[in-house]
Amino acid sequence: MSLIVVGSMAFDMIETPFGKSDRIIGGAATYIAWAAQNFVKPIRQISVVGGDFPKEELDALRAQGVELEGVQIKSDRPSFFWSGKYHMDMNTRDTLVTELNVLGDFEPVVPESYQGAELLMLGNLAPSVQLSVISQLKTRPRLVVADTMNFWMESAWDELLQVLKQVDVLLINDAEARQLSGEYSLVKAARKIAEMGPRFLVIKKGEHGALLFHENHVFFAPALPLEEVFDPTGAGDTFAGGFIGHLARTRDISFDNMKSAIIIGSAMASFCVEKFGIQRLREIDQEDIENRIRQFIDLVNFDIDLIG
Amino acid sequence: MSLIVVGSMAFDMIETPFGKSDRIIGGAATYIAWAAQNFVKPIRQISVVGGDFPKEELDALRAQGVELEGVQIKSDRPSFFWSGKYHMDMNTRDTLVTELNVLGDFEPVVPESYQGAELLMLGNLAPSVQLSVISQLKTRPRLVVADTMNFWMESAWDELLQVLKQVDVLLINDAEARQLSGEYSLVKAARKIAEMGPRFLVIKKGEHGALLFHENHVFFAPALPLEEVFDPTGAGDTFAGGFIGHLARTRDISFDNMKSAIIIGSAMASFCVEKFGIQRLREIDQEDIENRIRQFIDLVNFDIDLIG
Repeated sequence: MSLIVVGSMAFDMIETPFGKSDRIIGGAATYIAWAAQNFVKPIRQISVVGGDFPKEELDALRAQGVELEGVQIKSDRPSFFWSGKYHMDMNTRDTLVTELNVLGDFEPVVPESYQGAELLMLGNLAPSVQLSVISQLKTRPRLVVADTMNFWMESAWDELLQVLKQVDVLLINDAEARQLSGEYSLVKAARKIAEMGPRFLVIKKGEHGALLFHENHVFFAPALPLEEVFDPTGAGDTFAGGFIGHLARTRDISFDNMKSAIIIGSAMASFCVEKFGIQRLREIDQEDIENRIRQFIDLVNFDIDLIG
Repeated sequence: MSLIVVGSMAFDMIETPFGKSDRIIGGAATYIAWAAQNFVKPIRQISVVGGDFPKEELDALRAQGVELEGVQIKSDRPSFFWSGKYHMDMNTRDTLVTELNVLGDFEPVVPESYQGAELLMLGNLAPSVQLSVISQLKTRPRLVVADTMNFWMESAWDELLQVLKQVDVLLINDAEARQLSGEYSLVKAARKIAEMGPRFLVIKKGEHGALLFHENHVFFAPALPLEEVFDPTGAGDTFAGGFIGHLARTRDISFDNMKSAIIIGSAMASFCVEKFGIQRLREIDQEDIENRIRQFIDLVNFDIDLIG
């Protein structure tokens, strides 16, 4: 199924207990595209970068089937820049620097060639930008998936609620689910969030896996137990990329297939955290991915004889 | 397979964000026995209580096939008493009161009728007591399972290490695994703990499920997403009871069957947390358990077509 990805493309500078990165390539849409291109081509990207964004990075994405007609290049301005530092447990981080730069006044334009897309993946970005993209689409995609972050809950609550009404699948982390719903129990949170619009809700719990809620059904996918989480940056975006990539490849948006999509998303995220930035995602091939998925199958597979 | 359970039988007083219990029945061996008796009878209990421990509680256990010949009754002294208060997230708690009472100088005596047991379940208790039980057994059980708590890491490190050398399966929580190994990564922690003795390691992560490590294999079982965790007290012991009960019933101590045992343990623990103390465990029947296990199967079951 044809896929539009909307999100930031950016520079990151990351500090973890294991080391410090240079100024490296990041951004939600970058991670999503690198993960999803393993499963579906083309990917129609919508984003904005500054004149400092390396041409070779754009070429590398293009070579993987990522169409960049919807990526605006503002040559006289700098790209979005984020810098953060992770704590020892890697589940919490401090933002050191956020420079919105070209992202601050981004007005997305959906190219004519992108029209008719069946899947829309809204990566973490201002809700107003997400709404603008939705409103520019002449036909509603079969499935709208959104990945959010608490930043927008604090600064753009009303617009966020408008986006949620348009969204079929919402991907958020556990803290966001609690903040969005005001409920501590994730089961209760899921019920409240369903009332806000999304028919499917994925709650990402980092090293503790992910939950998929739909009507009265719930599915759980573990994260792969890893020796080290080297750098968690982009793991959520990569999860989203694997998730949407699998749906696009299989052309199946049923609950059952979303279970598989979450396993694929978890597998992709498990690669992402092995090195800084998108480095590991650029190295892996189909065989690596299949082997990793087999590890997930082994991880949760069991046979049980009921007592009776 | 014949089963000996060693552990405390006690009084608890519990405060959670949802309410406050009276002085209720608790203790590791109590929870283990109530969970395990659904799967195997008899259970040969080793513990100590004071004169204040209600006769009807002992009778209730006896009626479920729990043999109490190894439970000493010190009529002129009080039972072990613990009181604690849970925080909002239910994953952390403060101990308010610990009165060891009869447990402080407990010298277990293994009755002759208990000899020849194939399974030994060492519930949370002083390592010296655990060692004493092991040394009194004339033939080594086929499988020794131990459940520990950080309390003994602080006060009886050397004896704890001696116990670990005798243990085949160790059940601990994530914080204990980190403390015991000095490793933050649970994968690394598992490797170090294997060198201390246990061939199988189960790391319990509460609401985040449980991991089973054995050689280079790893298996993950989720916790059931619940609306409310009403009282987590005894959930770990109940998990242990379901785990050992399943192994005893099926007479199979392979890695594959331990996967099932962990699912059963998780299912039993999911009942435990629904009410104060052992209340919920006393209510449920085989049908409740089977239905709960089916929920676990639905929770993690997926079909995936590999890409190639």
